[in-house]
Amino acid sequence: MTRNRQILLMSRPDPALGPTEENFALVEAPMPRPAPGEVLLETLFLSLDPYMRARMYAGANYAASATLGAPMVGNTVSRIVASEAEGHAPGEIVESAHGWQAFAAVPAKGLRKIDPTIAPVSTALGVLGMPGQTGYTALVRHGRPQPGDTVLVSAASGAVGTVVGQTARELGARAVGIAGGAAKCAFLTDELGFDAAIDHRAPDFAQRLAAACPEGVTIYFDNTGGPITAAVLPLLAPEARLLVCGTVSVDRDRPGQPQSGPGMQELLSLALVKRLTIKGFIYTDADLMALEPEFRATVSAWVRDGRMRYREDIVDGLEAAPRAFLGLFRGANFGKLLVRVAAE
Amino acid sequence: MTRNRQILLMSRPDPALGPTEENFALVEAPMPRPAPGEVLLETLFLSLDPYMRARMYAGANYAASATLGAPMVGNTVSRIVASEAEGHAPGEIVESAHGWQAFAAVPAKGLRKIDPTIAPVSTALGVLGMPGQTGYTALVRHGRPQPGDTVLVSAASGAVGTVVGQTARELGARAVGIAGGAAKCAFLTDELGFDAAIDHRAPDFAQRLAAACPEGVTIYFDNTGGPITAAVLPLLAPEARLLVCGTVSVDRDRPGQPQSGPGMQELLSLALVKRLTIKGFIYTDADLMALEPEFRATVSAWVRDGRMRYREDIVDGLEAAPRAFLGLFRGANFGKLLVRVAAE
Repeated sequence: MTRNRQILLMSRPDPALGPTEENFALVEAPMPRPAPGEVLLETLFLSLDPYMRARMYAGANYAASATLGAPMVGNTVSRIVASEAEGHAPGEIVESAHGWQAFAAVPAKGLRKIDPTIAPVSTALGVLGMPGQTGYTALVRHGRPQPGDTVLVSAASGAVGTVVGQTARELGARAVGIAGGAAKCAFLTDELGFDAAIDHRAPDFAQRLAAACPEGVTIYFDNTGGPITAAVLPLLAPEARLLVCGTVSVDRDRPGQPQSGPGMQELLSLALVKRLTIKGFIYTDADLMALEPEFRATVSAWVRDGRMRYREDIVDGLEAAPRAFLGLFRGANFGKLLVRVAAE
Repeated sequence: MTRNRQILLMSRPDPALGPTEENFALVEAPMPRPAPGEVLLETLFLSLDPYMRARMYAGANYAASATLGAPMVGNTVSRIVASEAEGHAPGEIVESAHGWQAFAAVPAKGLRKIDPTIAPVSTALGVLGMPGQTGYTALVRHGRPQPGDTVLVSAASGAVGTVVGQTARELGARAVGIAGGAAKCAFLTDELGFDAAIDHRAPDFAQRLAAACPEGVTIYFDNTGGPITAAVLPLLAPEARLLVCGTVSVDRDRPGQPQSGPGMQELLSLALVKRLTIKGFIYTDADLMALEPEFRATVSAWVRDGRMRYREDIVDGLEAAPRAFLGLFRGANFGKLLVRVAAE
């Protein structure tokens, strides 16, 4: 049988540079063999997500940092090719967190079975996976959108943003997206039904944003941080909710990056005078996990009947992962970024 | 009958200096006469509160700015000396918002009657008034303190802070106060039962604060902003609540003041990684007003049986108001600052 292929995290990023391809190495490795209770998985799709950047550094963040010399962390959609675990048969499709490698032997316990009749299995990493769950549960729980609300979302054409905007529309709110470039903006309005989409690369971005939100922003779902967020702050309406989901435009582990926006006190004073709620979260928070069943039922139904659309940006071959991953932070992807590691 | 005396707001503060005594003028005025439906009030106590500073400027804030040439805004405890309104008799004590003046004729509708048998009537401007209501309702609604929580409050010996800390203790949480000077800190621990009190003027303030909060801060009730808040941020525990009540140490209308703490992105990244909730509010928010009956019942009972203690700093004479008011921003007061305008 063929040998395994892995992409290892070989070094921590130089804080002066941020992550580079040189932090990774593609290696061959022996084919793993499942122990009792385990299954052998063949990776079909590897998910590339912004949160992985922080895992490359040594500092504590949400979670432990990725281990040097081990496959880079990441979730996959995989096929069981051999099983030493009761109740799991070869051919089943599962979600697994075994990282950037072509094969892995993992405990069957904890794998999430994927029903391929609902939607293409790749969606288990996007609209029906962690990003979709993050967007839906946080918007519903912390944003509480209603008719009359203006929901503004940054990185709007990405895996989280597309779900946030369409969920806002389904709940009767106005949805405004921020994305990079005309093509992404056209996609948001023409294909996803956003009420407006603003290109943050436009020289008159701030003015366009204000014009698109004439009654102010009642919910800002922040996936980027940085200058985009700084431009949004003056538009926040009284009692607005600022949901801090991610900082794809800012490497939090790199000191000395250019600063955007006001200082601590000005932001806190804005929160006071406008009675804002600023909420940071991750999808595994208990109050968000409580909405997981609702998310699965609701968004699966929306995907099936075409009311929730999604876009995937699929690159081919495990070896393409590092370069594609780094492109996330330049907005090079258009939709949920995936690596097709093996044919379905 | 005697003439009225008023302190008028004569000029806006120079943003380079902030408020000064020269912005005010003491004048004599004709005695007002109540129209039908009105009562003539004699001011007993005038409340001096930090929020008034922002009202001196022209810019919009929570509320309209104070009118130039009119008595400076503020709440009072007053005695009805003449009544043209049914259901209101001379001798009654009421809370009124007629500002810095010895007498006023005001509509009887909207006055809050004060029961002098519950506590000294001055408490209607402090522990049983707006400051107490702010502290109690926001701590309960937005902080949700429980046993195991560490509640940290700044300006802890002030009108709001004393209620916050003692309410936290009553609800089973640990209460830590920040105040300026040894006397205020001793008052917090020895007389009010705070678990610890830290002098923000101590050179090793940050280290003492960390030592007083060994498990981190789960609820920070921020009355000051500025360097004190900057020192608290690193101590916030995961899922902590940062309640932005006031910025007594920072004049929000003065640009170019020294900046404290991190920039916008660092604060938002902290909110993300620690899953913080940052909440600005005023006591008239609908969700806080819903707790007003609970506040009145609970805190009145606590005051009556001595479980909620309070301290008032009373200066004599309307003419003393401007200087005493400016002292608020230097921490010159010790307890709820009041002006005794007339004897009870």
